[in-house]
Amino acid sequence: MSNYQDLKEKVLAANLQLPEYGLVKFTWGNVSEYDRERGVVAIKPSGVEYADMKAEDIVIVDIDGNKVEGDLKPSSDLDTHLELYRHFEDVNGVVHTHSKWATIWAQSGESIPALGTTHGDYFYGDVPCSRKMKKEEIQAEYELETGKVIVETFKEKEIKPNEVPGVLVYSHGPFAWGKDSLEAVHNITVIEEVAHMAWANRMMNPSILAMQQELLDKHYLRKHGVDAYYGQN
Amino acid sequence: MSNYQDLKEKVLAANLQLPEYGLVKFTWGNVSEYDRERGVVAIKPSGVEYADMKAEDIVIVDIDGNKVEGDLKPSSDLDTHLELYRHFEDVNGVVHTHSKWATIWAQSGESIPALGTTHGDYFYGDVPCSRKMKKEEIQAEYELETGKVIVETFKEKEIKPNEVPGVLVYSHGPFAWGKDSLEAVHNITVIEEVAHMAWANRMMNPSILAMQQELLDKHYLRKHGVDAYYGQN
Amino acid sequence: MSNYQDLKEKVLAANLQLPEYGLVKFTWGNVSEYDRERGVVAIKPSGVEYADMKAEDIVIVDIDGNKVEGDLKPSSDLDTHLELYRHFEDVNGVVHTHSKWATIWAQSGESIPALGTTHGDYFYGDVPCSRKMKKEEIQAEYELETGKVIVETFKEKEIKPNEVPGVLVYSHGPFAWGKDSLEAVHNITVIEEVAHMAWANRMMNPSILAMQQELLDKHYLRKHGVDAYYGQN
Amino acid sequence: MSNYQDLKEKVLAANLQLPEYGLVKFTWGNVSEYDRERGVVAIKPSGVEYADMKAEDIVIVDIDGNKVEGDLKPSSDLDTHLELYRHFEDVNGVVHTHSKWATIWAQSGESIPALGTTHGDYFYGDVPCSRKMKKEEIQAEYELETGKVIVETFKEKEIKPNEVPGVLVYSHGPFAWGKDSLEAVHNITVIEEVAHMAWANRMMNPSILAMQQELLDKHYLRKHGVDAYYGQN
Repeated sequence: MSNYQDLKEKVLAANLQLPEYGLVKFTWGNVSEYDRERGVVAIKPSGVEYADMKAEDIVIVDIDGNKVEGDLKPSSDLDTHLELYRHFEDVNGVVHTHSKWATIWAQSGESIPALGTTHGDYFYGDVPCSRKMKKEEIQAEYELETGKVIVETFKEKEIKPNEVPGVLVYSHGPFAWGKDSLEAVHNITVIEEVAHMAWANRMMNPSILAMQQELLDKHYLRKHGVDAYYGQN
Repeated sequence: MSNYQDLKEKVLAANLQLPEYGLVKFTWGNVSEYDRERGVVAIKPSGVEYADMKAEDIVIVDIDGNKVEGDLKPSSDLDTHLELYRHFEDVNGVVHTHSKWATIWAQSGESIPALGTTHGDYFYGDVPCSRKMKKEEIQAEYELETGKVIVETFKEKEIKPNEVPGVLVYSHGPFAWGKDSLEAVHNITVIEEVAHMAWANRMMNPSILAMQQELLDKHYLRKHGVDAYYGQN
Repeated sequence: MSNYQDLKEKVLAANLQLPEYGLVKFTWGNVSEYDRERGVVAIKPSGVEYADMKAEDIVIVDIDGNKVEGDLKPSSDLDTHLELYRHFEDVNGVVHTHSKWATIWAQSGESIPALGTTHGDYFYGDVPCSRKMKKEEIQAEYELETGKVIVETFKEKEIKPNEVPGVLVYSHGPFAWGKDSLEAVHNITVIEEVAHMAWANRMMNPSILAMQQELLDKHYLRKHGVDAYYGQN
Repeated sequence: MSNYQDLKEKVLAANLQLPEYGLVKFTWGNVSEYDRERGVVAIKPSGVEYADMKAEDIVIVDIDGNKVEGDLKPSSDLDTHLELYRHFEDVNGVVHTHSKWATIWAQSGESIPALGTTHGDYFYGDVPCSRKMKKEEIQAEYELETGKVIVETFKEKEIKPNEVPGVLVYSHGPFAWGKDSLEAVHNITVIEEVAHMAWANRMMNPSILAMQQELLDKHYLRKHGVDAYYGQN
C-alpha cells in the first residue's frame, strides 16, 4: 500500500467531481493537490478516462516534477500546477478544465466582471484573463510558461490569489485553486456559473459595469472576512 | 420529538425541491414557512449541504428572529424572510435562490416583462426589480434592509404581493413567496422559466413590449380570479 | 372496465412523453386523440400532475365537448383541440405545450423560418405564428376562438395542416398535431428543436433567409411524398 | 452467426453513443465503419429507433453500396458515407448527426473558427462549411452529391481530412470521421462543443478572429504530431 494512499484517494475524488458537475467532456480536465508537509503533489494521469480511473493511477511527484510514485505519466499540465504551488503559498489544490462558459470568456480574452452577489460570495473582484502568450513562450516550455503568465497576471493587476481563486488563460480556459483539491473544484464550478450569467448580461447590456463596491465588500466579507457570519462556524 | 416536527418536515421537503428543480448549486438557496397560528418560522440552516440536511436541522425561530428550537444557525437571509412575513399578510412561505436566469435579470437591474401566457398564468404583471441598495443599507443590517427594499418596491409600484408573488433584488437574485413554502418554490420555478424566455425574446427583439392587457387578464384570472376555471376545483 | 380503455392508455402514454422529452413543467401541456369511428375525443384532465396521472383520469368527450366518461374536468384547452379536429380532417392527435423555444417565437409573434434540413424533414415551410387575438375573442369563448384563429392562419396563408403539422399562437405557445396523439407529440418535439436552432441563427445573422426551396423539397419529399424512401417502408 | 458480428457490434456501440452523448433526437443520426481488408461497410439501418436497435439490424454493404448482409434498408445517407471512404484513404469511420450547435453553424453557412485550445486539440484549423448545393445536385443523386461536395470542400480549401476530421454541410448539419467509427463519434462530439462555444463568442464579439497560429500549432501537435506527448503513449 502506498504511503500516499489518502492523498491519492482525495485527488481521485476531486477529479471525479469534474464529470459529476458537468465541467468536463472526455479527459479534458485535471486536478492536483500539494501536500506541503510531505513535499509531494498528487495529480491526475494524462489522457485517462474518468470512468476507468482508480486511486493507484494518481501520480505522485515532487515540487520539481520528479516522479515519486506511479506507473502512468502525469497530466501534461503538471508544470502549470507546480508553478502555481511555488508562487501561491496558501494554495494546495489546483484544477484546470475546458468548462464551457469560462472557456468562452477565455476565448474572447476578457475577464469575467463581478456583476452580482453570486460572484461576490466567492471572488473579491473580476476573474482576470491573462495576456496572450508570446510565440517563444508557447514554443518553449509551454506548460511552465502558462503557470508563469498566471502568476504575472496576479502580480501586475495586484490581485491576491486567495481573494480571487481563479483565472482565465487567454484562448485556452480556466484554472482555479483553493486550500485543497476539493475547494479548487468548488471554485471552478462557481466560475462556470458566473461566467454563464455574465455572458448573458453582456449580451443583454453590452456596456454593463461591475456591481457596487459596497455590495461586493458585504458579500465577500460576510463569507470570507475575519467577521464572516455565513455558515455554521 | 419536536412540537414542530410536521413543519420541519414540510420545510425540509420544500428546500429539497430546489436542487431537484435545478434551482440551486451547493447551498445557494433557502426556504422558510411561517406558521402564523403558532407564531413560529421554520427555515433552512446556514451553509448546510442539501444532501446532508435532515428535518431536525431546520431551525425554528419566532417572528423577531429569536431561536425557539434547533442546534444550528438559521440561514443568513433570515431577516429578509421575516420582514416579508411582517408586511405581506397572506404570505406564509418564502424562498430565495441564485437561479440562473432570474439572477441575470437581477444583475441587469431590470424587471421581467410579462411577455406571454406562461407568465400571465402566475404573475399579474412584470416581476419587478428592486432599486439599488444604498451604502448605509448594505453596511448596516443588510439582510433586514433587503426585506425593506422589497416591501418598498411593492408599495412604490403599487403591486399586490398576492398578484405578483416574486421579486428580483438588484445585483443579487430572486425571492418568491406563496401561501406556504411549497407554493413559494413553485413560483420561483416559474420565475426562472419566464426569465429565460424573456431574456431570449429581448435578445431577438430589444424593444419588445409586454403582452396585450386583455390576454394577461384572461390568463391570470382564469387561474386566480373568483371565476377561475382551471384545474379540478 | 371502460369501453375506451385502449384509447385512454394511449393518450396517457402520449401525455407522459411531454415531461419525458422535457417539453413541460408542472401541468403545462395537454395531449388528446380523436377516434373518428367511435366519435370520441380522449384528453388530459385539467391541472393534474403528470406523476399522479392514471389512464382512468383521461376524460372522454364527444366532438361537441359533452362528457362521455370520466370523473375529472377535461383540460381547459379542450375547445381548441375540438376546433382543430372539426376542421383538419386527417388530424386525430393534438398537443399543446409551453415548451421553451417555441414559446419564445410565439412571444415574439414570429413564424419559425425553415432554415435547414432538420426543419424540412418534418415541416414543408415555416411554422406559422397566428395573428394577435382580438379583445372580444379573448373575452368571449377564448379557447374556442384560439382554435378558430389557428384554422384561419392556415387558410389565410394557404398552408396545408398535413404538410405543416404545427403552429404558434401569438403571445402564447405552440400547438402541434398528427395522425394520432403520439405523432402530435413527436412533431411538437421537433418544433422545439428547430425553434431553438432558428433562434440561435437569428441571433448570429438577423437577416437570415429560409433555406433553398429545392433542398426543402428534397428533404420533405424523401420522407413524406409518394416517392418517400426514408425508413423501412 | 454473421461473419461480420464483431463489426456489427462495434458499429452498434458507436451508434448508441449518439443518444448517450446527447447528439441525436429520435433517429436523426447514423454511424458507419469501413473494414478495408474485408471490403465491407457496416452502417445503421434507416429510420430505426436507437432503443430498439440490435447488432443484427446493422446492414453490411460493399463499397459500391450493394447489400452483403442484413434484412433492413441501410441509412438513407449511405452514399455520402461511401463517397468519403472512397476519397479519404485513412478514414474508416463516418458519422452524421443534426446535433444542435453544429447544425446552427451549417444553417448559417459558415465555418466554425478555431477560437481556442479545445478546438486546436482536435482540429488543425476551422471546421469548414461546404458550399450551397446546386439544384441539379439536389434533384439527382442527392446523397452521393453530398459526399462529392464534402470532398470538393477539402480539395478546394486544401485541408487534409486527417487534420480536420469533420465538416458542415450547408443548410444541413455536420459529418465527422476518424480511423474508426468510435473516433468519428468522438470527433463529432468535439465539434458540437466547439460549435456552441464559438457561437457564444461570435455573439459577444462579432468580429472575433481565429486564435494565434503558434498556439494552434502547439495544441494540435502536442496531441497529434510525431512529437506528441499527450496521453500515455
